[in-house]
Amino acid sequence: MVKLNENYKKLKVNYLFADIAKRVKDFQAKNPSLGIIRMGIGDVTMPLALPVVSALKNASQEMGAKETFKGYGEYQGYPFLQQAIKDYYTEFGVDLSLNETFVSDGAKSDVANFAELFSEDNTAIIPDPVYPVYLDSNLMSGRNITLIDGNEKNGFLPLPYSGLKGGIIYLCSPNNPTGAVYTKAQLKLWVDFANKNGAVILFDSAYEAFVQNPELPRSIYEIEGAKTCAVEFCSFSKTAGFTGTRCGYTVVPNDLKISGESLNAMWLRRQATKFNGTAYIIQRGAEAVFSKEGQIAVKNTLNYYRENALIMAETLTKCGIWFTGGENSPYLWLKCGMDSWEFFDLLLNKINVVGTPGAGFGKCGEGYFRLTAFNTKENTIEAMKRLKSLLS
Amino acid sequence: MVKLNENYKKLKVNYLFADIAKRVKDFQAKNPSLGIIRMGIGDVTMPLALPVVSALKNASQEMGAKETFKGYGEYQGYPFLQQAIKDYYTEFGVDLSLNETFVSDGAKSDVANFAELFSEDNTAIIPDPVYPVYLDSNLMSGRNITLIDGNEKNGFLPLPYSGLKGGIIYLCSPNNPTGAVYTKAQLKLWVDFANKNGAVILFDSAYEAFVQNPELPRSIYEIEGAKTCAVEFCSFSKTAGFTGTRCGYTVVPNDLKISGESLNAMWLRRQATKFNGTAYIIQRGAEAVFSKEGQIAVKNTLNYYRENALIMAETLTKCGIWFTGGENSPYLWLKCGMDSWEFFDLLLNKINVVGTPGAGFGKCGEGYFRLTAFNTKENTIEAMKRLKSLLS
Repeated sequence: MVKLNENYKKLKVNYLFADIAKRVKDFQAKNPSLGIIRMGIGDVTMPLALPVVSALKNASQEMGAKETFKGYGEYQGYPFLQQAIKDYYTEFGVDLSLNETFVSDGAKSDVANFAELFSEDNTAIIPDPVYPVYLDSNLMSGRNITLIDGNEKNGFLPLPYSGLKGGIIYLCSPNNPTGAVYTKAQLKLWVDFANKNGAVILFDSAYEAFVQNPELPRSIYEIEGAKTCAVEFCSFSKTAGFTGTRCGYTVVPNDLKISGESLNAMWLRRQATKFNGTAYIIQRGAEAVFSKEGQIAVKNTLNYYRENALIMAETLTKCGIWFTGGENSPYLWLKCGMDSWEFFDLLLNKINVVGTPGAGFGKCGEGYFRLTAFNTKENTIEAMKRLKSLLS
Repeated sequence: MVKLNENYKKLKVNYLFADIAKRVKDFQAKNPSLGIIRMGIGDVTMPLALPVVSALKNASQEMGAKETFKGYGEYQGYPFLQQAIKDYYTEFGVDLSLNETFVSDGAKSDVANFAELFSEDNTAIIPDPVYPVYLDSNLMSGRNITLIDGNEKNGFLPLPYSGLKGGIIYLCSPNNPTGAVYTKAQLKLWVDFANKNGAVILFDSAYEAFVQNPELPRSIYEIEGAKTCAVEFCSFSKTAGFTGTRCGYTVVPNDLKISGESLNAMWLRRQATKFNGTAYIIQRGAEAVFSKEGQIAVKNTLNYYRENALIMAETLTKCGIWFTGGENSPYLWLKCGMDSWEFFDLLLNKINVVGTPGAGFGKCGEGYFRLTAFNTKENTIEAMKRLKSLLS
């Protein structure tokens, strides 16, 4: 008789966003005429930029002609995209080799799968609150987990402390769900901790493009020593609207070795066995994100979302509500003054606005609430108007 | 200090096709003027069909307009593609529910990841020779493995035997690398064995579209009892030339339960945590494969490859070489009468034809060699002409 992976029983039955979707669906079924504004799930609303669409169409055309057809690509991605990623990193003063970049079908897959390279007999250090994938993927593997608390006192940016133990450290900055961003000095504490203890940092930088303050790091490799202890996961999802187009990249430095073993070589072996590359068409679309025209279009979209975040931040400030995020992040994390699912139901029922209850991101998220800047400007203004009248 | 997954040390250092690529590259560097014909890796050469290209371009266009833009899709795939897959299965007399189909980025990812649902304390039953992913993914997880031998006597179609033990059974039919196809009666023995022993069959049907003989099964669900013991993995790669476009699908029947747990629900949980769906654009391309025009185009391409396989089969027969496959498969598996890497080097050096050494697929593959029908007709004819003159 086959034995099941019993670790699945440690998972909560429903996925956070499925819970939310159900409550919204039930509400809408009862109130079909009410216009719900969704500021919950971190999905984008602005279309792909025209240079990206052109690249996708051209690549599709190439796939239809024998002379330009592409079969299996490289496991790490096409060199044209690896080169564009490498060039992009020079903007932050980070120098990468081509073979240090791995093109993926999105940061989520890689960040969830990377820990396969490590024994299940490891402790994972995971911030609370945080993107549920780090916790769930480690629960599925049966690893020990040490949660490190985010709270008002540390601005939801937990730091290493004396006695903290664990081999795998998950960090996300700009953070999902709190929007808080580690400074270089704070990240240096983590890098030093990891190098000193032989730990590996899995750094999720999916929201780096939202950083506006030039003093804040957009890549962990801006921190001295990071190349010997950190892997970085990034995505085109939020930068270029690729949530439904699926492309990301992972950086595994050649200098990152554990007991003499190269994690870069191990990850390549993993990908060669369990992945077959990202579609050629999609990689051409991603390449266009980095073109001059692509970058102009992408920056316009980012500014559009940033303006939304600003509108939201101003409203919360006016209402005297404590929050993090917004300035260098598409997320705002506010103190709701009540149970977070209660606040969710209040907003849904009273002002027909959907957000994400903080409790869905961990026990320290209880009493907090996430709003996102990814809706349209019109909806953002309307939602904030409703919120203001509800709270005042 | 982080502990590595020591199971990686059990893997061979180089991946089969990387080894081949290196030998070919070295040979070509020394002999730049010689025209090498590649009949090794199972990659296709014919372009995507026009209806598929149109669908990809239309979907790309949709992604560029706010009104038609698509963000995150469903974890299991868009219902339009799930419906098309369900309809396709009715061709084999198999009735599926929509929620039993999971759209993936290719059969390889799913077939490599699916065993995550099972404890590492299981024995995997894996045919030898076989597609290396089954073995390597289980080695990476530290599972016990029982290899079941394919050979001339059983036509490279091993069957369950008295005393065989194991909870996870990998089957591939039409087989990669041998091209051999299980009959319904043979598959029934496996289904009965699995149901009797509470084992799960992971059935790789990536090459089902090549089956011409109406007596042979194209899906394991054509066998009575399979829905309580089998998961099926399929792909658009070989059917529709999607090796570089990346789309596949996995069927997990609702009736498949282990200790009362639904594998369908567990797989959905896994995908929701570690995967974010296949690109909308690609799913629209895959949908077009199933359209009336798409099916006509796909069948033309399949017939083109089948003609190549026929040319190869005729040559091998004329040369008096024992082989399997070819008629219902794009692969031909021939007895080479010497060490298989020796035969590889002989073909590369003497007639500049690249195939795949059987030893790369397991110890029972030693002395055999795989050729594929995916090259052009012209190259196939030329390669067979050269092979004939070498062997006679």
